[in-house]
Amino acid sequence: MSERKTSDRLSVTAPKGFLAGTARCGLKKAGEDLAIIFSERPAVAAAVFTQNLVQAAPVLVSREHLRYRTHRAIVMNSGGANACTGEEGLNDARATAELVAEYFNCDDREVLVASTGVIGARLNMEKIKGGVREATGQLSREAGYRVAEAMMTTDTKPKRANKSVRLGGKVVKIAGVAKGAGMIHPNMATLLAFVTTDAAISKTALQSALKRAVNRSFNRVSVDGDTSTNDTLAAMANGAAENEPITKPAGADFDLFTKALTEVCRDLAIQVARDGEGARKLITIRVRRAPNERDAAKIAATIATSPLVKTAIAGADANWGRILAAAGRSGVKFDVSKVEIKLGDLVVAQRGMGLQFDEKRALEILKRDEVTITFDMRQGEVEVTEWTCDLTEDYIRINADYRS
Amino acid sequence: MSERKTSDRLSVTAPKGFLAGTARCGLKKAGEDLAIIFSERPAVAAAVFTQNLVQAAPVLVSREHLRYRTHRAIVMNSGGANACTGEEGLNDARATAELVAEYFNCDDREVLVASTGVIGARLNMEKIKGGVREATGQLSREAGYRVAEAMMTTDTKPKRANKSVRLGGKVVKIAGVAKGAGMIHPNMATLLAFVTTDAAISKTALQSALKRAVNRSFNRVSVDGDTSTNDTLAAMANGAAENEPITKPAGADFDLFTKALTEVCRDLAIQVARDGEGARKLITIRVRRAPNERDAAKIAATIATSPLVKTAIAGADANWGRILAAAGRSGVKFDVSKVEIKLGDLVVAQRGMGLQFDEKRALEILKRDEVTITFDMRQGEVEVTEWTCDLTEDYIRINADYRS
Repeated sequence: MSERKTSDRLSVTAPKGFLAGTARCGLKKAGEDLAIIFSERPAVAAAVFTQNLVQAAPVLVSREHLRYRTHRAIVMNSGGANACTGEEGLNDARATAELVAEYFNCDDREVLVASTGVIGARLNMEKIKGGVREATGQLSREAGYRVAEAMMTTDTKPKRANKSVRLGGKVVKIAGVAKGAGMIHPNMATLLAFVTTDAAISKTALQSALKRAVNRSFNRVSVDGDTSTNDTLAAMANGAAENEPITKPAGADFDLFTKALTEVCRDLAIQVARDGEGARKLITIRVRRAPNERDAAKIAATIATSPLVKTAIAGADANWGRILAAAGRSGVKFDVSKVEIKLGDLVVAQRGMGLQFDEKRALEILKRDEVTITFDMRQGEVEVTEWTCDLTEDYIRINADYRS
Repeated sequence: MSERKTSDRLSVTAPKGFLAGTARCGLKKAGEDLAIIFSERPAVAAAVFTQNLVQAAPVLVSREHLRYRTHRAIVMNSGGANACTGEEGLNDARATAELVAEYFNCDDREVLVASTGVIGARLNMEKIKGGVREATGQLSREAGYRVAEAMMTTDTKPKRANKSVRLGGKVVKIAGVAKGAGMIHPNMATLLAFVTTDAAISKTALQSALKRAVNRSFNRVSVDGDTSTNDTLAAMANGAAENEPITKPAGADFDLFTKALTEVCRDLAIQVARDGEGARKLITIRVRRAPNERDAAKIAATIATSPLVKTAIAGADANWGRILAAAGRSGVKFDVSKVEIKLGDLVVAQRGMGLQFDEKRALEILKRDEVTITFDMRQGEVEVTEWTCDLTEDYIRINADYRS
């Protein structure tokens, strides 16, 4: 079996020295809903969390645990967010980490915890206990593939990505899984995602690489502008690849590693956008020739979160005026009279004004399941890309009775 | 016929000295699409416009004309926004004002212009000319009632409001009309609305009263977070009520007038929210016991624009976690552990945590066509109210093929 195929089959256990276990606790109506990722040797961990003021218990506990120098495991459940559950919720999250630590005979703080699901209800700890027992009892490399499924809530597809990079003659592997769908918005991890790598890298270098990767991937994806109480992106690096350790956030190896990590995160982020709740189309928004990255990102994010733009694309309607109006309310000062807008390769507006364009051709472009909007500012040299999805009736259907 | 009924039948011509004319130009597929409001004597005008960087030609022209000391008429059309139409669009807006001024034998600058409809296409000036001719040819008090209909785009109902206030023994009338539906969002007029009053008031006092009124009405309404290129709220005051003139933005008469104007604007704003595109429910968001108005308004607006909150209400799902999560991403720092959330009169969360509440009762409350969400911060004394609507499949249907 080729390298690529093995990675595909193994997912987060493709990097050396990782095992996984999954279980069905019964928190979700169907399917597995608990997963554990385990590093056979002490790993270093880094993470980014939601910037929402309201932070779920597992986020608070993981933040605390992350201060520890080494980590061995990540335990996650779907079917319950354990958010807004007070002191008792915190105790539940801590107890979950303890259960896992007991099994692996490690410090509680070496275990990170993540949850996703409905806010405000306490977790059924009996079910969690059963799930942890089952998952830890069947640890294997093969189970790595099932982790992405166990994370799913309203996702329609599991999300996996992996990448190899050669660092000084050694092959280093990076693998990631994610769940997304609703409550996806820039300015934070905005979902659950876990990355494993066998790279030898210091904790601070890993944290720095992760931040850079997130800024050009998950922070450039928006489904509906809502951020969650539980967003967590955690990475573990265990050094099993035996590359020359990356000890600081600089140098050729660090750059190569960061690039590969960014690609894994970007791959996952695009899968998240494409599988947005109710989405039928992936929308890529390219803001070109902007004066600076901050303005470009602001405009891209405002277009990406405009319900009017997203419904127009859902309806294959070349309503470019909504794109320009969205940019106009982004808070960025720019010269409207220079802007050119393209749908795919079709120019629909120039010098801030509409053109007589071929509506048939526009329809053809907008009916595809991938649509690229290019907002060419023609007033600088910076380019930013953001991903989102169209807004369809199904988004409403999914979210109108999520709790039932 | 009683005072109230006459006002209802007359709308913007209920205040003394105003006439109106409407016409069907053929810009919209059906119905009247042009309206003129005319003051028989020179009036003073005040207005607020969109804060979107992209401003339609009629907005630019009206801004310019507003600098003139007196005004006689407002002309508006639906069926075309005349936005992103360049120099030619500006000329079209100017030509429309000229046509009207010619008929009334007044200065061009005494005419304000407003348009609504699809962005990016030029107006058919032949149709506009015909419409202006027809509308000016049939000026009457009775036509006042039809102005609100001629303004409609995706609105399902015309929006009218009126109010009388006694100032020093004289009855002063204030009347307003609005169109809203999509592209409604705080921080500006966010729609087309026209107010007439027979109050004697100076231009600066009127402008000040209008600003105050807008801040507590239209700027507290959100349908989808998108702002338009054409938003305009214009008011004309002609002094025909012969009250002691209000010459400055202070004093008892000014306060009484501002209060009545605010009520008219609030009435219209709530009608706009209730008739949001695809809306089945009016949602009132009360943020209570906040430390200050700025924070309260920020939280209220974030809840009001959360697609997850709005779809939950559409589905009668008491998903209060989404309300708390929306507040959490508003950017306001607050003590989550003090917050109480009510749906109608049912407490669903307390001290930032969920309660065991009566789901049947919650369903009963959420199935009504008016739902009040109370976000009680319990950390101050300020209260702010914001209005929005639920987000339904119909919003998508309306917006997916708006141009066709």
